[in-house]
Amino acid sequence: MKRPARARDADLACGGLPTGELNSIADVPGVRVGHRTLVHGEIRTGVTAIIPHSGNLYREKPIAAVHVLNGFGKSAGLVQVEELGTIETPILLTNTLSVGTCCTALVRHAIEHNTDIGRETATVNPVVFECNDGYLNDIQALAVTEDDARAAMTDASSEFEVGSVGAGCGMSTFGFKGGIGTSSRRLDLDGHSYQLGVLVLSNFGRSGDLRLPDGEVIAPPRARAEREATEKGSIIIIAATDIPLSDRQLKRVIRRPGVGLARLGSFWGHGSGDIALGFTTANVLSHDEKSALVEIRILNEDRIDLLFEAMADATQEAVLDALVAAGSMTGRDGRHRPALTDTLFALSSDT
Amino acid sequence: MKRPARARDADLACGGLPTGELNSIADVPGVRVGHRTLVHGEIRTGVTAIIPHSGNLYREKPIAAVHVLNGFGKSAGLVQVEELGTIETPILLTNTLSVGTCCTALVRHAIEHNTDIGRETATVNPVVFECNDGYLNDIQALAVTEDDARAAMTDASSEFEVGSVGAGCGMSTFGFKGGIGTSSRRLDLDGHSYQLGVLVLSNFGRSGDLRLPDGEVIAPPRARAEREATEKGSIIIIAATDIPLSDRQLKRVIRRPGVGLARLGSFWGHGSGDIALGFTTANVLSHDEKSALVEIRILNEDRIDLLFEAMADATQEAVLDALVAAGSMTGRDGRHRPALTDTLFALSSDT
Amino acid sequence: MKRPARARDADLACGGLPTGELNSIADVPGVRVGHRTLVHGEIRTGVTAIIPHSGNLYREKPIAAVHVLNGFGKSAGLVQVEELGTIETPILLTNTLSVGTCCTALVRHAIEHNTDIGRETATVNPVVFECNDGYLNDIQALAVTEDDARAAMTDASSEFEVGSVGAGCGMSTFGFKGGIGTSSRRLDLDGHSYQLGVLVLSNFGRSGDLRLPDGEVIAPPRARAEREATEKGSIIIIAATDIPLSDRQLKRVIRRPGVGLARLGSFWGHGSGDIALGFTTANVLSHDEKSALVEIRILNEDRIDLLFEAMADATQEAVLDALVAAGSMTGRDGRHRPALTDTLFALSSDT
Amino acid sequence: MKRPARARDADLACGGLPTGELNSIADVPGVRVGHRTLVHGEIRTGVTAIIPHSGNLYREKPIAAVHVLNGFGKSAGLVQVEELGTIETPILLTNTLSVGTCCTALVRHAIEHNTDIGRETATVNPVVFECNDGYLNDIQALAVTEDDARAAMTDASSEFEVGSVGAGCGMSTFGFKGGIGTSSRRLDLDGHSYQLGVLVLSNFGRSGDLRLPDGEVIAPPRARAEREATEKGSIIIIAATDIPLSDRQLKRVIRRPGVGLARLGSFWGHGSGDIALGFTTANVLSHDEKSALVEIRILNEDRIDLLFEAMADATQEAVLDALVAAGSMTGRDGRHRPALTDTLFALSSDT
Repeated sequence: MKRPARARDADLACGGLPTGELNSIADVPGVRVGHRTLVHGEIRTGVTAIIPHSGNLYREKPIAAVHVLNGFGKSAGLVQVEELGTIETPILLTNTLSVGTCCTALVRHAIEHNTDIGRETATVNPVVFECNDGYLNDIQALAVTEDDARAAMTDASSEFEVGSVGAGCGMSTFGFKGGIGTSSRRLDLDGHSYQLGVLVLSNFGRSGDLRLPDGEVIAPPRARAEREATEKGSIIIIAATDIPLSDRQLKRVIRRPGVGLARLGSFWGHGSGDIALGFTTANVLSHDEKSALVEIRILNEDRIDLLFEAMADATQEAVLDALVAAGSMTGRDGRHRPALTDTLFALSSDT
Repeated sequence: MKRPARARDADLACGGLPTGELNSIADVPGVRVGHRTLVHGEIRTGVTAIIPHSGNLYREKPIAAVHVLNGFGKSAGLVQVEELGTIETPILLTNTLSVGTCCTALVRHAIEHNTDIGRETATVNPVVFECNDGYLNDIQALAVTEDDARAAMTDASSEFEVGSVGAGCGMSTFGFKGGIGTSSRRLDLDGHSYQLGVLVLSNFGRSGDLRLPDGEVIAPPRARAEREATEKGSIIIIAATDIPLSDRQLKRVIRRPGVGLARLGSFWGHGSGDIALGFTTANVLSHDEKSALVEIRILNEDRIDLLFEAMADATQEAVLDALVAAGSMTGRDGRHRPALTDTLFALSSDT
Repeated sequence: MKRPARARDADLACGGLPTGELNSIADVPGVRVGHRTLVHGEIRTGVTAIIPHSGNLYREKPIAAVHVLNGFGKSAGLVQVEELGTIETPILLTNTLSVGTCCTALVRHAIEHNTDIGRETATVNPVVFECNDGYLNDIQALAVTEDDARAAMTDASSEFEVGSVGAGCGMSTFGFKGGIGTSSRRLDLDGHSYQLGVLVLSNFGRSGDLRLPDGEVIAPPRARAEREATEKGSIIIIAATDIPLSDRQLKRVIRRPGVGLARLGSFWGHGSGDIALGFTTANVLSHDEKSALVEIRILNEDRIDLLFEAMADATQEAVLDALVAAGSMTGRDGRHRPALTDTLFALSSDT
Repeated sequence: MKRPARARDADLACGGLPTGELNSIADVPGVRVGHRTLVHGEIRTGVTAIIPHSGNLYREKPIAAVHVLNGFGKSAGLVQVEELGTIETPILLTNTLSVGTCCTALVRHAIEHNTDIGRETATVNPVVFECNDGYLNDIQALAVTEDDARAAMTDASSEFEVGSVGAGCGMSTFGFKGGIGTSSRRLDLDGHSYQLGVLVLSNFGRSGDLRLPDGEVIAPPRARAEREATEKGSIIIIAATDIPLSDRQLKRVIRRPGVGLARLGSFWGHGSGDIALGFTTANVLSHDEKSALVEIRILNEDRIDLLFEAMADATQEAVLDALVAAGSMTGRDGRHRPALTDTLFALSSDT
């Protein structure tokens, strides 16, 4: 029997809304994702880049919002997104101790494409999110380089891998191997189809707490589960959409990943840095705007429940997507994370 | 067969932690709850009072915190709790349009017991929370009086009813009759037993979305469910504890009710005013403090996951408690909410 | 010599930007202000109503934002403005203990004009702000009635009094008699003229801290100043504009009143409830919107410094406006607040 | 005549409270400050380190808080301080584009002293603040290295320079040369003396807006002033105290720098990243705490006005301290910032 590649292949769909064509954040037109994966010696880490659109992001800034579900985290760039409601760089995901390096890589990347930065115009706000992959990865090695960050950006495509790739390489989830997952929902408004796409860097949850969509609780084999102390994980949720929204509306939408995480069995543990960023490609503000006033479109807020539901469902499924796609992995000091699919197959072959 | 009085009687316990003796917010020593229920003509409403301790609350202010899960609500008093981290009145729950009346009642109550208010000392910050019971209640009648609010406070006791009582009289939850519910958890820290108690005013959730702890989705009989349009509900969560906490720690704890709500099937809908307030009786600040410095005890934050889990479990169970305790009700214009237990019994007698 | 009626008549203009025609919040087209003033026995209080536009506010909701500069206050309605970015009632100002009554008055007023509230549609979010006038007023009397609140709304006009009127009747500022003040600035964007208007309910500041625009520090006569203990005041700042803004942009603008208060000599004291609300009449959202998407205009954020400067200047001047317009007053227990102008005249006749 | 070394030498004292012995953040026992200054070619930049106490900061975490006055900034580490109310590394200040490098330097520094980071225990949260020195400095060169950051930490002492040193090397303020400044206030509570110290990285304000404590407005020579476009500055305010405070109380205190900035003539411009961090050495939480409960002392909040006033005064004076200590500087492309003292002397020699 062939291993399932995605959550839906393993019958782990979430909610009743239809998915986009790829069931991926790249269903939002223009959004691309790239990875740089580092596996050597005791190193199990990497970088994942989400590119919101194919233009110059510093010149054409998508409206965006951030939400901190639990702030035991070290992500960078949130202050300015909160103040101005826009992003102006690609979004990088990496391990906790490599945030600085990825910030610097984004700064250099922005300068290359915008030689007026810090001279004739303002500086630039790099957005970098992180989880702690220290269970499997020698995180003290600070293995990620600026070149790695650049490579992840160069690799960006609308077709991309999920599972133990990029920043997801060394991540763990509910005692299983975690990583990168994605999912999307197609939303119809006044006869037009829109997309809400989610990508997660999944590294949270205690062994034994994972609950599948059908209500079943599933744990990794006992001996391994006992090796972990308290949770020291995190989850990063990136949401993209082509629905026109204000930053306040986006912020309301990206509060709903917490619903998906709770359904999966998490209570948003103390040691977790659970952070969401959302952006819309439908409202892009020009760095060089000359007019005093700008027109944007926003959602009739009475319709926003549809987005809330999509956000909850797609987050839940994106985590399962990461779990299904990630094979088992052995990392530093021989530490091991089993694949969810091994346990799922064992269960189904039992019956 | 006797109707179950509480969620646990209907086998709807949540989570693995032990409950307090009463499985109620009143397991926290000193906490009392009272109701005033109004049922006449088209009126189905009331007031519920939570009294944090038996002393003079204005003189001895419990450390407290508020968290807005979704802010489509009209509760009063949050600004000052946020700034100062204390409460100084009983907490009243009522219907949305009676918040003003309950504020005034709390003001008069505080002045009676503290004749220096607004003269030799500061004014007073009434805390009043609300849900919209307009489905069953003629909310436009503004039926609640200051005397009703006072009656709820006078009625306060460590033994109190749940279900369609007090502010819960006319409330609805997932298409069933909702109302007041409660639950508690016993938490052991360094060999001492503490209590975390929760009381909810439950009035949220779409018909068909309710999920029981075993994963079963349960809906009211079809015809009735179709009578509602989009959700216009709310839920208020009051948490009490005798664990010493700072206001920041309390705020972290009272963000976790969202986990319980998500497990129940909610995605924290747009039209809902979902607000939590928590207080600790272990840290009480004197209005008349003369010393420049005050000692308080706070939690070693590494232990806070225990409180997070308790908060999620107790919120989930308190909502089920409200659902189990509330009988079916017919209100204004003949509108009807069935009891969850009727559907549960119908299901179990089917099998 | 004739008493000056407004700050500018007393040569207390602030900043270099031009004012609107009335130098008032009513320079924003459609904005009206009304008062109900209560002076009898020991009572020195009232209600002030700001009406954002002449239509049905519940049906046509201006985009709005709130900012809490210091939260030792009891204002109502902020939670929903924060969540949804709109207001849906007139704005009432009153004394601290009458907030509940004014909330109820706004609820009844909204129901009268919208009979579907709490029945076929949602409930309503009354916005009421307050200061503590207990120095001069017998605040414990709760003298304000629902009829008074209604009278203030009925009285609303684009021409209105400032000083010891409406909610300003019993207020104090820097040891002088305070009250209601207003000011506006005309702002030119791409060749169009816009207005930013401010109205304050001024009741803050310690005796001896007031600084005039020219840098001079001015105090009330010594004996009276010594009668007050620590500050227990507050200031409410209402900003209106016809510049198209998002709620996030409005929130940034209404953080700047703190600049004006600091220039006046305040350090935003502990006991003060300093709260700002801003709204724009240029972006009004329909309660009954049928389309999924709505167009709004927002400001090119690079131009926002102009609004920041206007906000700081107009707040500073509005406070001085209240001080200049308010005559001296004797209130409960023979307590007295001198008029700023008496001290100003005494100073100028000395020289 | 000898150049004044500090603000007080130039008769620019602020407020009426007494200063500490050094009139410096190092008046708080245990606090040290170090600099690394880079001046070569077109480079005018550096790093400043504030060391909160002489122990292992990761093991003994001071209670701390952050406040964003205006969030057009790229500082790192705020999310976790907000969530947990502690800091666990030295605080680094640098130029905007070198934040990433300084984060990495702090990470390596923490690992060196705590080899269990990311292995047996959690990761580490570097706190790095920044201003844009691009007017005088070739900021695109990213001249700061990890070694420079380390050198600043090694240099830390209770006696340290102010002016154009460390991160202050290339900064500008109100069109004059800015940089690092400091000031402190001695506060007496119940017969004990405490210290509140402030250090600023001052890089904000438009030419022509600076107002001295006596009310005089002072501008750099005209020709130079006209060379700047809109403000693109920032100010970072670090506050230290040995007064026992909770994180909420600290947060209230560090909102008051805005008062000092407003008195100086700023309206907190759009393009400015104005951010404050405060910590107390009186409440330090152990990373390895074994007890479930911990005692801390907090301030009787009725006394907090004293700290508010000290914070406002010390911030105002610290900025003037930077201005007085910084000599004129010519930087990249021959751009020049005059010294405030040159203008002050010119003025006084005129009279």
